[in-house]
Amino acid sequence: MVRLRLDLAYDGSGFSGWARQPGRRTVQEIVEVALGRLFHLAAPPALTVAGRTDAGVHARGQVAHVDVPAASWASTGPSARRGMAGLLTSDVRARSVTVAADGFDARFSALWRRYSYQVCDDPAVADPLRRGDTLWHRRGLDVDRMNEAAAACLGEHDFAAYCRRRGGASTVRSLLRLSWARQASGAAVAEVVADAFCHNMVRALVGALLAVGDGRREITWPREVLAAGVRDPAVHVVPPHGLCLEEVRYPPDSELSQRALATRRHR
Amino acid sequence: MVRLRLDLAYDGSGFSGWARQPGRRTVQEIVEVALGRLFHLAAPPALTVAGRTDAGVHARGQVAHVDVPAASWASTGPSARRGMAGLLTSDVRARSVTVAADGFDARFSALWRRYSYQVCDDPAVADPLRRGDTLWHRRGLDVDRMNEAAAACLGEHDFAAYCRRRGGASTVRSLLRLSWARQASGAAVAEVVADAFCHNMVRALVGALLAVGDGRREITWPREVLAAGVRDPAVHVVPPHGLCLEEVRYPPDSELSQRALATRRHR
Repeated sequence: MVRLRLDLAYDGSGFSGWARQPGRRTVQEIVEVALGRLFHLAAPPALTVAGRTDAGVHARGQVAHVDVPAASWASTGPSARRGMAGLLTSDVRARSVTVAADGFDARFSALWRRYSYQVCDDPAVADPLRRGDTLWHRRGLDVDRMNEAAAACLGEHDFAAYCRRRGGASTVRSLLRLSWARQASGAAVAEVVADAFCHNMVRALVGALLAVGDGRREITWPREVLAAGVRDPAVHVVPPHGLCLEEVRYPPDSELSQRALATRRHR
Repeated sequence: MVRLRLDLAYDGSGFSGWARQPGRRTVQEIVEVALGRLFHLAAPPALTVAGRTDAGVHARGQVAHVDVPAASWASTGPSARRGMAGLLTSDVRARSVTVAADGFDARFSALWRRYSYQVCDDPAVADPLRRGDTLWHRRGLDVDRMNEAAAACLGEHDFAAYCRRRGGASTVRSLLRLSWARQASGAAVAEVVADAFCHNMVRALVGALLAVGDGRREITWPREVLAAGVRDPAVHVVPPHGLCLEEVRYPPDSELSQRALATRRHR
């Protein structure tokens, strides 16, 4: 068998998220079925993914791995990307299909994930072409206020206040970056980087910050919610369509196995 | 009556173009109907537009004017943009609704129109989120070659070779800018500026330049086609969805009437 790394981009609008669900159209199923056909396998192979995006969430930098028979890869490899382009619908693209370095695990080797969340708060620059990946917010946003509030949430914390709990899993995460900037288009875009994210974490953090940005809440509020450690119903989880997985970062090849081991121990 | 200036943005995907056509969904009809309801008029008022975009063509900087009773404007004016947002579908936005300066004519006062055409020629950066406003081109493009070929087409010429003729109208136009640049996303984007455009002109020029950019044609070819003065079936008119009307430029208010008169004489 040979392990392949897939770099994927998709428009999440038409999907019930990444993860396979019976009777639903999911990115995982579409890509697995395409791989099965590309490599002439008896059944679609199983993908392991870096970020299990929710329904409606987009990706430009999703990473997954899959193990396929070495003979299949040998015969198809060079034209794998072109082959996938012909097998996938236009809302998913395999940007590259390559042999992964030894020890690579798309999920456990990752150092961090970077998401963006795009908001348009000014009807004078509203762009209907971007309505599929931009939240239209009715009130004007003060980016400086949001950045001040965001900075207070950086670091390693228990993000239980901003997560939908799943079983007994840890909700301790390292939030490495959370900052807003105005784009040339006039939209405000958040960059959010963490070692990993728990469920709904970006959308809940963004919701808390929008309330600061438009003046409904004090700058100190998002940090207070974090410190309280329980979900606060006053935090509005923003819709999925403004969210995009932009990048997954891995360590140098020599450290892939070590990183995967450390992550598995940690979670 | 008072003359209003509307600045409009739309996703052309769901429209049979700007201009009203019986039984078709058009931008003009959607906006006129919304204006009729906003101002409580007996019938939708007639819009005059700067650029009659074709089916599938987008706009971020479309400009139109409409004359409405002064009393209607007096009662609705301050909330006109918000009112329009509630009346329009999400694929059209009125970015502003203001009283036009004296002598303003959205079509005839314009100095020039600026369009963009966006092409992705590299599967490694294909973005499904932008597939609605980006042409996916199978061959790699050399932007420098395209810019050299484009420069040779600048200036005032009879663009009959690049236009679908409509009646006996002149096809002489001043092409003020035609240049390509790589975006941060990896896409190649053409900026095209002319005093006005005849039908299909941008899409035919882009088609000729893509053939230069991917090596199918010589750098001198687009200029030779222009000089021949007749439509060349070898010029492929590219699809509408990569095209967007970005900006319409007007002279200072004091010159609006004069410009409109000069344009009317000229056409």
